[in-house]
Amino acid sequence: MARSRQLRLGAFMRPTTIHTGAWRYPGAAPDSNFNLALLARFAQTLERGRFDAFFMADHLAVLNMPVEALKRSHTATSFDPLTLLPALAMVTERLGLVATASTTFEPPYTIARRLASLDHLSGGRAGWNLVTTANPDAALNFGMTEQPAHADRYRRAREFFDVVTGLWDSWADDAFVRDVESGVFFEPERMHVLNHEGPSLRVRGPLNIARPVQGWPVVVQAGSSEDGRQLAAETAEVVFAAPGNLVEGQRFYADVKGRMQQLGRDPDHMKILPAAFVVVGDTAEEARAIRAKLDSLVHYDSAIASLSIALGTDARDFDPDGPLPEIPETNASKSGRERAIRTAREEGLTVRQLAQRMGGYAGLAMVGTAATIADTMEEWLETRGSDGFNIMFSHVPGGLDDFVNKVVPELQRRGLFRREYEGRTLRENLGLPRPANRFFP
Amino acid sequence: MARSRQLRLGAFMRPTTIHTGAWRYPGAAPDSNFNLALLARFAQTLERGRFDAFFMADHLAVLNMPVEALKRSHTATSFDPLTLLPALAMVTERLGLVATASTTFEPPYTIARRLASLDHLSGGRAGWNLVTTANPDAALNFGMTEQPAHADRYRRAREFFDVVTGLWDSWADDAFVRDVESGVFFEPERMHVLNHEGPSLRVRGPLNIARPVQGWPVVVQAGSSEDGRQLAAETAEVVFAAPGNLVEGQRFYADVKGRMQQLGRDPDHMKILPAAFVVVGDTAEEARAIRAKLDSLVHYDSAIASLSIALGTDARDFDPDGPLPEIPETNASKSGRERAIRTAREEGLTVRQLAQRMGGYAGLAMVGTAATIADTMEEWLETRGSDGFNIMFSHVPGGLDDFVNKVVPELQRRGLFRREYEGRTLRENLGLPRPANRFFP
Repeated sequence: MARSRQLRLGAFMRPTTIHTGAWRYPGAAPDSNFNLALLARFAQTLERGRFDAFFMADHLAVLNMPVEALKRSHTATSFDPLTLLPALAMVTERLGLVATASTTFEPPYTIARRLASLDHLSGGRAGWNLVTTANPDAALNFGMTEQPAHADRYRRAREFFDVVTGLWDSWADDAFVRDVESGVFFEPERMHVLNHEGPSLRVRGPLNIARPVQGWPVVVQAGSSEDGRQLAAETAEVVFAAPGNLVEGQRFYADVKGRMQQLGRDPDHMKILPAAFVVVGDTAEEARAIRAKLDSLVHYDSAIASLSIALGTDARDFDPDGPLPEIPETNASKSGRERAIRTAREEGLTVRQLAQRMGGYAGLAMVGTAATIADTMEEWLETRGSDGFNIMFSHVPGGLDDFVNKVVPELQRRGLFRREYEGRTLRENLGLPRPANRFFP
Repeated sequence: MARSRQLRLGAFMRPTTIHTGAWRYPGAAPDSNFNLALLARFAQTLERGRFDAFFMADHLAVLNMPVEALKRSHTATSFDPLTLLPALAMVTERLGLVATASTTFEPPYTIARRLASLDHLSGGRAGWNLVTTANPDAALNFGMTEQPAHADRYRRAREFFDVVTGLWDSWADDAFVRDVESGVFFEPERMHVLNHEGPSLRVRGPLNIARPVQGWPVVVQAGSSEDGRQLAAETAEVVFAAPGNLVEGQRFYADVKGRMQQLGRDPDHMKILPAAFVVVGDTAEEARAIRAKLDSLVHYDSAIASLSIALGTDARDFDPDGPLPEIPETNASKSGRERAIRTAREEGLTVRQLAQRMGGYAGLAMVGTAATIADTMEEWLETRGSDGFNIMFSHVPGGLDDFVNKVVPELQRRGLFRREYEGRTLRENLGLPRPANRFFP
């Protein structure tokens, strides 16, 4: 019997796996990021597992890590999300398709149009992971000599959100009458010219595509800094949080949902999905052995490079066997730096140990059987640590298949997760309302 | 028996039809621009007809015409080309997929990545229609108060081409070794950092996706001005020209191929495909009746608006029954203005007559039976007026189906057009060489 609170599950595809050793795992597909047939199979398997969405993370540069580490990275290159997801829309029917698109470098008009196009093509299954880009190498790819400061990026992101959603509202849902007899294709009084002139952006509009099927594609965010939480509370409908444990998750959940209430938003209109690295075994021992094998495949060069990125500082000169030195505040993502420092302090790790954790996967992990993983998810859901999870598979295809074949049935048996999709659109499946058109209420 | 010179055929999809009356034609699909099932069927029909490519034109604004005309336009809104074409890649196997992407507003890094992604997804079938954007309403959608001048747009376009192709050459074709044993995913000495710093663009690179299947997606252009021809001679592999008749076509063909030879390029490495509006009937009378019916469905409001766009000047105040007054040089596309003025002068048209021609379709048209259309195409091919055509269908699905079912078999019977695709990639089918990597020859 279904519980009143239901889990929501996203699949975090970067595009496929995040663990640095995953591509070398026995039986894994080293080329999965670029293997369209496999990616289509993954999407179809996720749909068979009734996942809410295929969530495609992204970077706008080859990652800024030392070349000796970079050459070992299977995630430095990937398909553009807004080009891959239309293809995956053609081989799926219900799975949500969430594209990361940065507010830092690209024009809002084309971002709004591409996401609206994806929403129409997929019958209302598009989501927009609205990010700001902190990677200085990305700034150099877009004509900037240095990336904008953290607060500036978030101010621009907020304005960018207003512009993109305003463009999505360019047309009333019933604007296109296509009256063959009179020759009127659309009713001009049902078209709105945005005429936005803000501190960062000037965009006239209207958008040259009909209003999305969902009104707006689902707005997703991942920021966990003060600025990030406030932006999420104001604008996000799904948040991919990254708490390290249940207490952190509960604190984040209460904080962001509390901010929503202060802003007059219904807290049910946001689903908070922490990233969870999941390793499934038939026994707890087997799961631990899989993780140990994965970690053993992470080269130290990659490990220390990952730590450098997280800290926003070059860690290669640190004493590998000493404690983590004091790290000054930088322009890098605050959440990544704080987690690394906290992990080192809390667990008393040396630089080498910390680097190996960061180089594999350092965040929240669920390593066990379908039953123990379901136990953990149930606890998070029931104690308001989250509304579900954004799953990072240990490796592909094996780890993804194991999750769908073993964990999903266990969650369904407990009444925690759907057996059939509730609706046709991503919004309907997530239980999110369709936004009213601000110009044509 | 196949002739030595073979026709190349593109399908000009804007996304579907260009004639302003087409959506009202009896039996036509008024919603074809946004009907994914129909668009998939069109692409599959074109593939059955062995077309080289589905060519998707584009605009970056709702067209700048008076609202009374705009409301009658079925082409003011459309899917984003780089979002639709990945979807069509999934339902076709050999058809080329050409996306229009402007060099005027968007960053080259994302354009290069999206086209590379489409090329990988489609197994080497992507093309880039490199355009500069003259529409002042588009400039307003991208934060500019007025569009850049013609010559400035072309200078930027040339630099943009260098950057995009340089980014496509970021990786040697064999850079990604994915050696599971050693843990080396790619060889860093097979990666090139572009470090472009030019007058308009600063882009570091490398691109975060492997080199395209085709080396570079096929580079397509449509400019016919002096700047446009020179840019095409320097960079284009397919040119969608718009001559009004065979003599103009021959002159354009000789001019652009002559410029190529002066630059040391092999003239066979460019296919010149004039836009041809084709109306097929079982008799010449039936074809003429179809066109007459189509033209009768064009409203005068649309007609006068189209004339205004072509001239770059508001024509609504002109005397409809008088001759076209003197038109000053403007910042609008030169080719459009010159054609309108020439058509009026050559044929002695009133403003109203000219407007009705411009509002339907004013360019090169082939109106007749499969045999007479094939005669015309053969003459153009044999007398070097073109290497083929970019077909504008009178209406969809009817006009497209008629072309594939009637004209294509006639061209095949004459040995002028392929019965089977020559290769797997768009380059192979067009007979274009795969570009060497400038950094890893």
